[in-house]
Amino acid sequence: MKKIGIGLIGFGTVGAGVARTLIERKNLLSERAGFIPELVSVCDCDLKRPRPVSLPTGILTKDVKKVLENPQVQIVVELVGGIEPAGSFLLKALKNGKSVVTANKALLAEKGDRLFSAAEQSECQIGFEASVGGAIPIIKTLRESFVANNITSLYGILNGTTNFILTRMAEERLSLTKALKIAQDAGFAERDPSLDLSGTDSSHKLSVMATLITGKFFPASNIPTEGISGITPEDLQYAAELGYGVKLLSILKISPSPSPLPLRERVWGEESVSLATYPALIPNRHILSSVRDVYNAIFLTGDLVGESLLFGKGAGMNPTASSVISDIIGIGKNILGGTKPSPLFTGPGRKLQLETDFESRYYFRFSALDQPGVFARIAEILGKHNISIASCIQKEEKPKKAVPVVVLTHTAKESAVKAAISVIDRLPVIKSKTVLLRLAFDG
Amino acid sequence: MKKIGIGLIGFGTVGAGVARTLIERKNLLSERAGFIPELVSVCDCDLKRPRPVSLPTGILTKDVKKVLENPQVQIVVELVGGIEPAGSFLLKALKNGKSVVTANKALLAEKGDRLFSAAEQSECQIGFEASVGGAIPIIKTLRESFVANNITSLYGILNGTTNFILTRMAEERLSLTKALKIAQDAGFAERDPSLDLSGTDSSHKLSVMATLITGKFFPASNIPTEGISGITPEDLQYAAELGYGVKLLSILKISPSPSPLPLRERVWGEESVSLATYPALIPNRHILSSVRDVYNAIFLTGDLVGESLLFGKGAGMNPTASSVISDIIGIGKNILGGTKPSPLFTGPGRKLQLETDFESRYYFRFSALDQPGVFARIAEILGKHNISIASCIQKEEKPKKAVPVVVLTHTAKESAVKAAISVIDRLPVIKSKTVLLRLAFDG
Repeated sequence: MKKIGIGLIGFGTVGAGVARTLIERKNLLSERAGFIPELVSVCDCDLKRPRPVSLPTGILTKDVKKVLENPQVQIVVELVGGIEPAGSFLLKALKNGKSVVTANKALLAEKGDRLFSAAEQSECQIGFEASVGGAIPIIKTLRESFVANNITSLYGILNGTTNFILTRMAEERLSLTKALKIAQDAGFAERDPSLDLSGTDSSHKLSVMATLITGKFFPASNIPTEGISGITPEDLQYAAELGYGVKLLSILKISPSPSPLPLRERVWGEESVSLATYPALIPNRHILSSVRDVYNAIFLTGDLVGESLLFGKGAGMNPTASSVISDIIGIGKNILGGTKPSPLFTGPGRKLQLETDFESRYYFRFSALDQPGVFARIAEILGKHNISIASCIQKEEKPKKAVPVVVLTHTAKESAVKAAISVIDRLPVIKSKTVLLRLAFDG
Repeated sequence: MKKIGIGLIGFGTVGAGVARTLIERKNLLSERAGFIPELVSVCDCDLKRPRPVSLPTGILTKDVKKVLENPQVQIVVELVGGIEPAGSFLLKALKNGKSVVTANKALLAEKGDRLFSAAEQSECQIGFEASVGGAIPIIKTLRESFVANNITSLYGILNGTTNFILTRMAEERLSLTKALKIAQDAGFAERDPSLDLSGTDSSHKLSVMATLITGKFFPASNIPTEGISGITPEDLQYAAELGYGVKLLSILKISPSPSPLPLRERVWGEESVSLATYPALIPNRHILSSVRDVYNAIFLTGDLVGESLLFGKGAGMNPTASSVISDIIGIGKNILGGTKPSPLFTGPGRKLQLETDFESRYYFRFSALDQPGVFARIAEILGKHNISIASCIQKEEKPKKAVPVVVLTHTAKESAVKAAISVIDRLPVIKSKTVLLRLAFDG
């Protein structure tokens, strides 16, 4: 049986999971792959830390050249994370004719265009299944299973930490701080959770999928991104009363959609794509509202397959290692068969524009003085901006004090909503910044 | 760009969808595949029926040899359905050195062993993504994405018609007959719905996945199968009150599970597999209970990935065509690259036994005379069979008449339950056959 040499850079949690699986499941993997995926070199700056696997003697090194310039290494697995030096390692590997596998969403979301074109130039392959949704096979599904489809929309719960926090806040009425503390104590939230809470990590993953779906590079920095820091248990409570759950969603929508010509080639020039990450209200009946705790899920619509959902763990040593190994086996087979990598998932001559003024239904929570005429004033301003009210909750009565007034709107333009809220927030009867959330899958 | 010749046998609904996609999306598919998948011959016994696609002149034929013996055809797509002549067509195609793609679950579930060994002998490939769950990419996920995993359990909602019927019965309190009529009028239930209602269609699909997961052929005829014919709106109502939805589930469980050695090679000799299809109560909180109407879903656990779910349309022209095309592109790439097909998803020297006496929690609905001592008598018989009662509902009071008594049990053995119920059903105070359902994901 032929061998494919694997070099690993980054021997942390996921790296150890990959090494352990390659070593302890060598027979099983070889039988299933039709070749032996052999770990020949592992590089990390920390040689001493205890890990849950024993490497063969002599393969652990601090010298990255022993991976990048090792003639035995055909596939370089990068699990360092961050932009640099990870990006240089990958470019160097590709330049040296080695295919690469990475879980590095931040790098792909910021420098993906350089990496993809380097891979194309060197005729090497690049695997990144583990960069989005841990164990969820979304990359293979988009590139291979749904190869005949035009994807028209995608809604992802892409960050386990924020989904855990929102679940605990909704189900146990915890504050965000308390729920975050539980996640940190359990070891799955970072000490510095800002990439998660701000929605940036989710937008990194959305960027990777957007590139795959459209064939055009949309760096995460161009994606409008809101995190969950402004959400209170009170908002989750109102949402529940109205029949909704709140999730941090990353959204891609291609317009016009669905295509009026479902089976013909699309007229690409007429399209635009909107991309955004924000916390959204999802009707309880929608399957995405059943995605609880640290789980991730991606709900997408293709013009042939219709609505689909992939659900699973978004992170962790073994789930992530599973996706890395799947890429290793797929790329190894292609190397041995001389098969070229699939091109990026793209349409012929597609010219998509990024649309930043998307439409949605909205949830507002105003803090308004409880006095006559206040609601009429708010409604009047919304009406002037073409925003029409669908329903409203005002429970407490505290004459002359600020009380929460919750409003759900019909579909409105983001630009109109921002303009209206900025007027409303300057009214003397409004006592703090209005909370603004969007609705998904509803109208 | 190179061409791969496609021959199609069976030009019905799905066949027309495949032909239409290959013809109308030729450019898109070629760009994504790296070769041109060209439809060169289409065979059907009905040449006149109108279809939603125009074929190039001269390629439609009644003569199956024009596909099976056509030197231009490298991949034969079989969409005839049924055991014969579909099986002979596929064997002949493989013998002639052609790879095959099929959506024929009945054939795979009854003659899969012959087809798989014929494919192995001829070194040809066999694609069957469309045979399970329409657009759901379960076959590729099991073989490729989860290649490093040992799958420990799988729960599938694999039949759209029965899921639609159960959803309508539960949500609108319709009778089974009425809900079936709606499904037939809407065109997605067959005139003769017996394969669906009896659970046989679901067990066909379970057989295909069981073969893939265990590497051993388990024909559907060996799988204990119960359908939904015995379910009443009353049972769905009781289940809802107890916090459950009812779904027709196809189940695979490997025991012992989870493995005590998660990352070592498993000791295959010690394992058994239980397979069954039956209607089951699922807790409302479980994501599978959100799978409504004609949707299918497969919830599976791998020892690395943990819990995963794939959800989508289970049938229909375009979803099924999408999966067939995905197989065509995958196999075409392998043919051009000279890559060998992946072996079946198997463990080294795996010797699994089929376990037919599975364990579960149970739901019973007794029709018992409303008189003193009856419940005690039932409880006594259950107790003697080591079946312990977890909860119970008896609402109506109709002295001296039969009333429904609903009991949920703790975990019990199927054999003990069958024995106990056969004793209970012979009691004079029991007025009709006890309804027996199982619980999933709960205890």
